[in-house]
Amino acid sequence: MGTCWIDFEPLGRRAECVPGETLLDAARRAGVALAAICGGAGSCGRCRVRVMVGDVSSPSETEIHRLGTEAVEQGMRLACQTRIHGGVKVYVPADSLSTTQRLQVEGQAVRVAPNPPVLACPVELPPATLTDLRADAVRLRDALREAHGFGDVALDVAVAQTLPDRLRAQEWRGVAHVRRVGGRAEVVRFGAPDEPPLGLAVDLGTTKIAAHLVDLRTGLSLAADGVMNPQIAFGEDVMARIGYAMQGERQARELQEAVVAAIGGLARTLCGRVGRTPREIVEAVVVGNTAMHHLFVGLPVRQLGTAPYVPAESAAMDVKARDIGLALGEGAYVHLLPNVAGFVGADHVAMLLGTGIPDMDGVVLGLDIGTNTELVLKTPSRLISCSTASGPAFEGAHIRDGMRAASGAIEWVSLDDGEVHWQTVDNAPPVGICGSGVLDAVAVLRRAGVLTAAGRMLDHPRVRRGDDGLEFVLATEGETGHGRPIAISRKDVSAIQLAKGAIRAGIELLMAEAGVAVSDLDAVILAGAFGTYLSVDSILEIGLLPPVPAARVHQVGNAAAVGARLALVSLDERERARAIAARAEYLELTILPEFPNAFAEAMLLSP
Amino acid sequence: MGTCWIDFEPLGRRAECVPGETLLDAARRAGVALAAICGGAGSCGRCRVRVMVGDVSSPSETEIHRLGTEAVEQGMRLACQTRIHGGVKVYVPADSLSTTQRLQVEGQAVRVAPNPPVLACPVELPPATLTDLRADAVRLRDALREAHGFGDVALDVAVAQTLPDRLRAQEWRGVAHVRRVGGRAEVVRFGAPDEPPLGLAVDLGTTKIAAHLVDLRTGLSLAADGVMNPQIAFGEDVMARIGYAMQGERQARELQEAVVAAIGGLARTLCGRVGRTPREIVEAVVVGNTAMHHLFVGLPVRQLGTAPYVPAESAAMDVKARDIGLALGEGAYVHLLPNVAGFVGADHVAMLLGTGIPDMDGVVLGLDIGTNTELVLKTPSRLISCSTASGPAFEGAHIRDGMRAASGAIEWVSLDDGEVHWQTVDNAPPVGICGSGVLDAVAVLRRAGVLTAAGRMLDHPRVRRGDDGLEFVLATEGETGHGRPIAISRKDVSAIQLAKGAIRAGIELLMAEAGVAVSDLDAVILAGAFGTYLSVDSILEIGLLPPVPAARVHQVGNAAAVGARLALVSLDERERARAIAARAEYLELTILPEFPNAFAEAMLLSP
Repeated sequence: MGTCWIDFEPLGRRAECVPGETLLDAARRAGVALAAICGGAGSCGRCRVRVMVGDVSSPSETEIHRLGTEAVEQGMRLACQTRIHGGVKVYVPADSLSTTQRLQVEGQAVRVAPNPPVLACPVELPPATLTDLRADAVRLRDALREAHGFGDVALDVAVAQTLPDRLRAQEWRGVAHVRRVGGRAEVVRFGAPDEPPLGLAVDLGTTKIAAHLVDLRTGLSLAADGVMNPQIAFGEDVMARIGYAMQGERQARELQEAVVAAIGGLARTLCGRVGRTPREIVEAVVVGNTAMHHLFVGLPVRQLGTAPYVPAESAAMDVKARDIGLALGEGAYVHLLPNVAGFVGADHVAMLLGTGIPDMDGVVLGLDIGTNTELVLKTPSRLISCSTASGPAFEGAHIRDGMRAASGAIEWVSLDDGEVHWQTVDNAPPVGICGSGVLDAVAVLRRAGVLTAAGRMLDHPRVRRGDDGLEFVLATEGETGHGRPIAISRKDVSAIQLAKGAIRAGIELLMAEAGVAVSDLDAVILAGAFGTYLSVDSILEIGLLPPVPAARVHQVGNAAAVGARLALVSLDERERARAIAARAEYLELTILPEFPNAFAEAMLLSP
Repeated sequence: MGTCWIDFEPLGRRAECVPGETLLDAARRAGVALAAICGGAGSCGRCRVRVMVGDVSSPSETEIHRLGTEAVEQGMRLACQTRIHGGVKVYVPADSLSTTQRLQVEGQAVRVAPNPPVLACPVELPPATLTDLRADAVRLRDALREAHGFGDVALDVAVAQTLPDRLRAQEWRGVAHVRRVGGRAEVVRFGAPDEPPLGLAVDLGTTKIAAHLVDLRTGLSLAADGVMNPQIAFGEDVMARIGYAMQGERQARELQEAVVAAIGGLARTLCGRVGRTPREIVEAVVVGNTAMHHLFVGLPVRQLGTAPYVPAESAAMDVKARDIGLALGEGAYVHLLPNVAGFVGADHVAMLLGTGIPDMDGVVLGLDIGTNTELVLKTPSRLISCSTASGPAFEGAHIRDGMRAASGAIEWVSLDDGEVHWQTVDNAPPVGICGSGVLDAVAVLRRAGVLTAAGRMLDHPRVRRGDDGLEFVLATEGETGHGRPIAISRKDVSAIQLAKGAIRAGIELLMAEAGVAVSDLDAVILAGAFGTYLSVDSILEIGLLPPVPAARVHQVGNAAAVGARLALVSLDERERARAIAARAEYLELTILPEFPNAFAEAMLLSP
């Protein structure tokens, strides 16, 4: 019996495997870090995959018990229980991956034919002599015309300032980075010979800033990393920061400079990893919600913080990086995707671009869960977006033992026959609970009957009275890393109810606006880093989503970041983004008379 | 006998006068400040005018003696000796005016049909409401399209940053200043309702910076002033400043910041005079020689200071004022006219534009005298320019008692029968001698035989031996304002010989290149503030110019400043400037084998 191949999608990983071994063994060898708390015993149910094609063992009793008949019929399997008989291709849902692997997934290459805004044009110029007295800039323009066919190229003033010394230091050779946007061509940097055109794609979140350093010629990510948004020091959520900026010019400038410094630092970090400098970055794309967008560009937010909440600008912007204090290539631009409305920003447009929702068939619901959750409903004739203030509970904030998804955070919880099981990030001793863990906890407590639909906590050996009223102890003093118990309080449950209620109410009102029933939903797309960490079962259990079959829910990761990278490397994608923003309708939820009732009803913990 | 009218050209002044009174009396009443040292006795000969048409008294003996038969036949008269018989029109040469009046002349309105780069577009927008949630910028663009027909207008980022608060403070009304250049339209400022579009035209000289504040709609100058170029502290001439800038980045930045601060200060002064602020300036034009141009824009000058002396940029530039640290309107641009070569800069192109030399008939020689003197020779088929290092002697520098043309500077000298006469600026007691005074002194000493053609000083009652060798005492201790004598030394004469030799050599080599003889010259145009102060007789006497009839020499004032104002208010004029620069040939004098001989010969003090 020879070997065969196994493919893991959507990761694009492939490994050789021996018939008879399990999918879990093959995954480990392929570097696909499936979550497997029980170590392959079939008891935790976390290593779920879907067999797309290929010859594998039949579902075991354990699998049918863990996954349910319907899921098994759709091809769902537990990787630890499934033995390979021949070549096979499996699909790995995001929440079957460990945290570390999920972060890696977000670093995947973006598949797009690059049509970059900035072209790297190598040139070699005849040196200046007494018989050829052309100005340096004229000499460069002549070479760009002769060698690259550019008719009329403008020179950024900062490029003109550095060109003469560079030309002579580089012996009259180099790379002119020419930006061709809107019928204009402009040299935004003159660099060393063979210098690649670097781009920076930034997902500017209220809490976190993630960036990719990209080779504009190939679209490939060269390095990626994230930092906390330092504006948190001035206000945790969007409204708090708008309020701070409204206090005065100094305060608004503080916020602007803080975020620019953070992005500049990220650019230095990423460039440092590949032996480059931020001066070699010739184009950047930044996506964020409207408030983050405005605070980054230095646009005022007063009118965003008061009714009727209009943006200063909603069209796409091309801003010189230096005009907002960002030190990239001499004449580099930052491109900002269009905003839709005051609370449906460029990150939403980027998410639509990154997921492709506007071009999907049928009826599709999209969610980007965060402190503000943006929703979109795509029907055959409409594309309607709205925003709901879901708060930071899903990010572990305002939860008593809450924390970010860092080492030691409980990220997954189950309750079987009264026994509590959990998994922490990095399998470290627990020190707190992150958003996905809280959500799981609420869902399993509801399923076990410890919580009522209204969120009331009932008796259970683990329920005790704490400082905030009743609480359910997840980890005892002896189990935690800091010697204090970790519990879910009644107040934590309320925070989750408010958050999920805001989202569910938005979904219901969107569907009502479009005249769509739950049964019409062909797909639900969970975008955003956070949506990727959540357990779909738990989301459905507590009714954050309407009751759709779990198989219709797709976790696509940080689609806004993907959209930013698409827009970074392709002018066609920028045009698509413009068309999407022009087509998107905006629904203002808070002025709808149905909103209060919908919200109250949606807070119930039931599908 | 009734009254009649007298017109003074090219000033455009008109006065009523009584038949029988002198032209000088009429001039005084009209506010035309004719120079008249002798108080109207006919002895100083400074109040020369040309009667163009009209009925006046016949030339007196005094006039024929002072002016010569040929000049009198061409209509030249002394205003103090000429009595009005009826309506008359006279032409006033620049050097018949007092210094103050000459400065006023430079403030004349530029006659051009404005086609301004920036249009003031008043708009009134519908306020944002819950049923009209358009972004502020979108609202403005929509209004510009509907009310002014702009299809696609970009918004400068600094305008976008200020727009929302302005719109609300101004109750949704205001003026959008839209710049239409190169097929692009861009809002560079959003101002108060009825705000006029202000422009700033700057003549950036090595020694002096002159600026006009202009209403772009009419082309009218609202205020004008000048200051010394503060870069003088870092080096007196162009080469010294290039040398300083080449010492390092800090030094180059010092020079750049000094000149920007001076222009910013001028803008504040001018705006203050008419109750405006520099923030309301929506466009500026700056002209200067190539080195001043580069140091202002922050372009490097190393390659300008070393062979083959090429500019960093020779095409026209549009630079955001903020990019070079100049605080004008939010998104205002500075337009810089094209340079021709390393030492024939944008100020030369502006002079050509301001004088109209390229479009004149026949053969025309143009000079802009300064520390560097730019020359142009226009023949029916060619337009050839060159530059000569004439040094600062004509500006009173490197002259022992030299000074600027400030109060108390001897600006005019005559020597009749051994008697020295002079006139000072403001008729103050003399404290020094300015460039035109030195040149006059050398010319009259040469005419009186006190100087030989080689510049040697011969015996004369006023000649004595001083610290620098022989010197001619112009004003004795008792006559001066500071109690020390003022004299012209042999070394001062040498300085004038070097300066005039450089210019004359350039003229001879230009004429040789074009195959033009002195008799072919139809006109000689003396441009530049300095050329206006010089006595044409003196210039011809010492042979700074080839021996042409004095009537063919025209003093046109600061034509570069006029060119700057034309380019400020008219896109057509910018196009003309581009065409002129493209057509201009550059002749590098120093590499011509004939240069040394031509220079040596040209230093002789003879026509």
